[in-house]
Amino acid sequence: MSTQRAIGIGLLGLGVVGSGVAESLLSKPDALALRAGAPLALRRALVRDPKKARALTTRPFPLVTDPAQVLESPDVDIVVEVLGGEEPACGYIERALRAGKHVVTANKEVMAKHGPRLLALANEHNVQLRFEASVGGGIPVIGPLQRDLLGNDIVSIRAIINGTTNYILTEMAQKGMDFAVALGQAQQLGYAEPDPTNDVQGIDAAYKLAVLATLAFHTRVTASDVPHEGITRLRAKDFRYARELGYAIKLLAIATKEQGNLTVRVHPVLLPMETLLAKVDGAFNAIEIKGDLTGTVTFHGLGAGARPTASAILGDVVNIARAICGGEQKPMTASAADGPEEQGLRLRSMAELSTQFYLRLNVVDRPGVLALIATVLGEHGISIAAVVQKDADPAAGSAELVITTHPAQEARMQKALAVIGRSSVVREVNNLIRVEAV
Amino acid sequence: MSTQRAIGIGLLGLGVVGSGVAESLLSKPDALALRAGAPLALRRALVRDPKKARALTTRPFPLVTDPAQVLESPDVDIVVEVLGGEEPACGYIERALRAGKHVVTANKEVMAKHGPRLLALANEHNVQLRFEASVGGGIPVIGPLQRDLLGNDIVSIRAIINGTTNYILTEMAQKGMDFAVALGQAQQLGYAEPDPTNDVQGIDAAYKLAVLATLAFHTRVTASDVPHEGITRLRAKDFRYARELGYAIKLLAIATKEQGNLTVRVHPVLLPMETLLAKVDGAFNAIEIKGDLTGTVTFHGLGAGARPTASAILGDVVNIARAICGGEQKPMTASAADGPEEQGLRLRSMAELSTQFYLRLNVVDRPGVLALIATVLGEHGISIAAVVQKDADPAAGSAELVITTHPAQEARMQKALAVIGRSSVVREVNNLIRVEAV
Repeated sequence: MSTQRAIGIGLLGLGVVGSGVAESLLSKPDALALRAGAPLALRRALVRDPKKARALTTRPFPLVTDPAQVLESPDVDIVVEVLGGEEPACGYIERALRAGKHVVTANKEVMAKHGPRLLALANEHNVQLRFEASVGGGIPVIGPLQRDLLGNDIVSIRAIINGTTNYILTEMAQKGMDFAVALGQAQQLGYAEPDPTNDVQGIDAAYKLAVLATLAFHTRVTASDVPHEGITRLRAKDFRYARELGYAIKLLAIATKEQGNLTVRVHPVLLPMETLLAKVDGAFNAIEIKGDLTGTVTFHGLGAGARPTASAILGDVVNIARAICGGEQKPMTASAADGPEEQGLRLRSMAELSTQFYLRLNVVDRPGVLALIATVLGEHGISIAAVVQKDADPAAGSAELVITTHPAQEARMQKALAVIGRSSVVREVNNLIRVEAV
Repeated sequence: MSTQRAIGIGLLGLGVVGSGVAESLLSKPDALALRAGAPLALRRALVRDPKKARALTTRPFPLVTDPAQVLESPDVDIVVEVLGGEEPACGYIERALRAGKHVVTANKEVMAKHGPRLLALANEHNVQLRFEASVGGGIPVIGPLQRDLLGNDIVSIRAIINGTTNYILTEMAQKGMDFAVALGQAQQLGYAEPDPTNDVQGIDAAYKLAVLATLAFHTRVTASDVPHEGITRLRAKDFRYARELGYAIKLLAIATKEQGNLTVRVHPVLLPMETLLAKVDGAFNAIEIKGDLTGTVTFHGLGAGARPTASAILGDVVNIARAICGGEQKPMTASAADGPEEQGLRLRSMAELSTQFYLRLNVVDRPGVLALIATVLGEHGISIAAVVQKDADPAAGSAELVITTHPAQEARMQKALAVIGRSSVVREVNNLIRVEAV
């Protein structure tokens, strides 16, 4: 501990997460000072409306409305951004870095869209930009990818990284609810936002996957590179049928590297019951990383909430403070992603994906229908693994077919589905869910 | 990348793990150079017998028998110690640190017995001592404790950190084997050493727990502080009875902090089936860390083997190399454990532990026996949760009693057991296993 001058912290935002960070900073100053090498002093917090009622009761620091008082003040060493959303957060982070401030952010959207550029900017200004809180809440996963697993060539990532959807899927699976009902309940309980689009459409998970894949594969994956499909089409019966086949249904964020090709995607999958990820229930997150050396390691914990997120942010803050106190000349760049790209990885489209499928169809209950569907699939090079007829409805003259396939190319399946969907004996293609092998 | 001079690596030991490290270093030099900021050059390996046949086929580096050629050679920047055992490993590490070399070690015994002293020595000589590989093989857990979780006050650690015993326990549970049979099989398959003492007596797990607890609680826990009990007394029927009661049996390393008291211990426990740790099977490891902010996070993966261990070692090597290339003036001390101790934690003895118990007794099959045992337990302040009579043997006139208790103090249970053991109606106290609550 070469110095005992306090390290100044400036907060951008004082919502749920910001209050959690402030509370934690204020509640154990001595322990944090010992670990950081100097006292951590919370200088001020930027808010839109200083008069708004807030959960934080003791608040021995001023609220300000002028961003410059956080971003460019000489007594601030580390700016903590917990505003969320792309702007003004991204602009503020840029300003802070240009002013020579270290930045800690929980912002997956900003990191997914602008991460490599911001990391380069941090590097240029000899400061750190840390973002452990942007993925997996209180689960350390950015740090392990940036440091501990650096000896590995990462082969794949499979992750449950959206707690809201995992909570909804768990309710659907355990209580036989349909999506709309489970969503309504999650909203009532505060587990889902009034506008749930970002969560249920897989957009939030896609942001986080972009952040993880960029680090893991030493390449640049941005938000728009990640095809994503949400959970809104899932019905209670899909969970029932999946269970009968030995599968759970989870919203997975998947990145796989194969022979110079990288595939990234977010969508619901059927996952064998016995896998660790299939057992991750409720609001928990889990990130499974496979490396050429380490094999498969899995990180499990709470992926959201004020305290878990504060854990990640404080970890970053303390580590930056240690570096400041240790007199680092040039901070270690946070990741190879802001240096030269290691690999000429090609980003593969979903159409090229090869996977097994689960297909649920509402069909006319008449002999020959299955033969017709099997023929169409066969013509597209897709072979059937199993077929079960479910829930015949004599009044409507319809039946439900559940089909699982052997691995087939996504593009072919989509073509086959278009043909099947146009057939007069098929009333509706209810669902197409990809199946993950063990 | 401020320099492109190669970073010199010297290996101490070229056994299974050492060969794994060498192979990994040699197999992807370009990727590692990019991540490290400079090429990593394996200068030489210290071995006892250079003529011994080795798995490593290509070996573009010399084997030496003089330790000084690794420990004190000017072309070595980082010494990697993979000899295992206390000596000569510990003495070599000291010499290397004194010679200004950074050290990466996989040695849990050395770190458990001498860690704080060696870390202080490293600090004094402005070099790093890293030991990610000493616990959990390829699972990042030292790094997360040293850095990512630093904002937390750690409340508890519960860990399956010995793959050999977890493999044996899994076989016993799934195939109804007794300990001796399962051990013999594990030895045949190479999962257990010819002399299995360190593993099956819980000594290896105790070393690892000492390392984890020292970091997590910012205090000094050495190997001799950790009471440990092995798995040799477990029988197939314990697993059967445990399952009937809803429990798995695992060898857990546990550290808990409560009101200024720290309890550390390694022993078999009954663990509710539905917990994540109960589902960790075979040679896998899992470390569950509970922090005041992050809640419970769990790290799961392969805890041993050449490649997972090489993953951890290379991670440490690459990070030291980055620090060298980044021109760090003074390396961040690896942990607060080598600075002042944060907390005046008192190490509590096993006797003070309060826990539930599972008790298996062989008793005379006669009315009144249970009443007698219940009376003795009651006199010692221990209340019974459930009793099941098992496997009466009319020929021998004996029966088996399985008793579970409500939480009770360990010291009282030990006293009660001594009384019970002396009773003429009790033929044998077969087993006493502690029960972990969810």
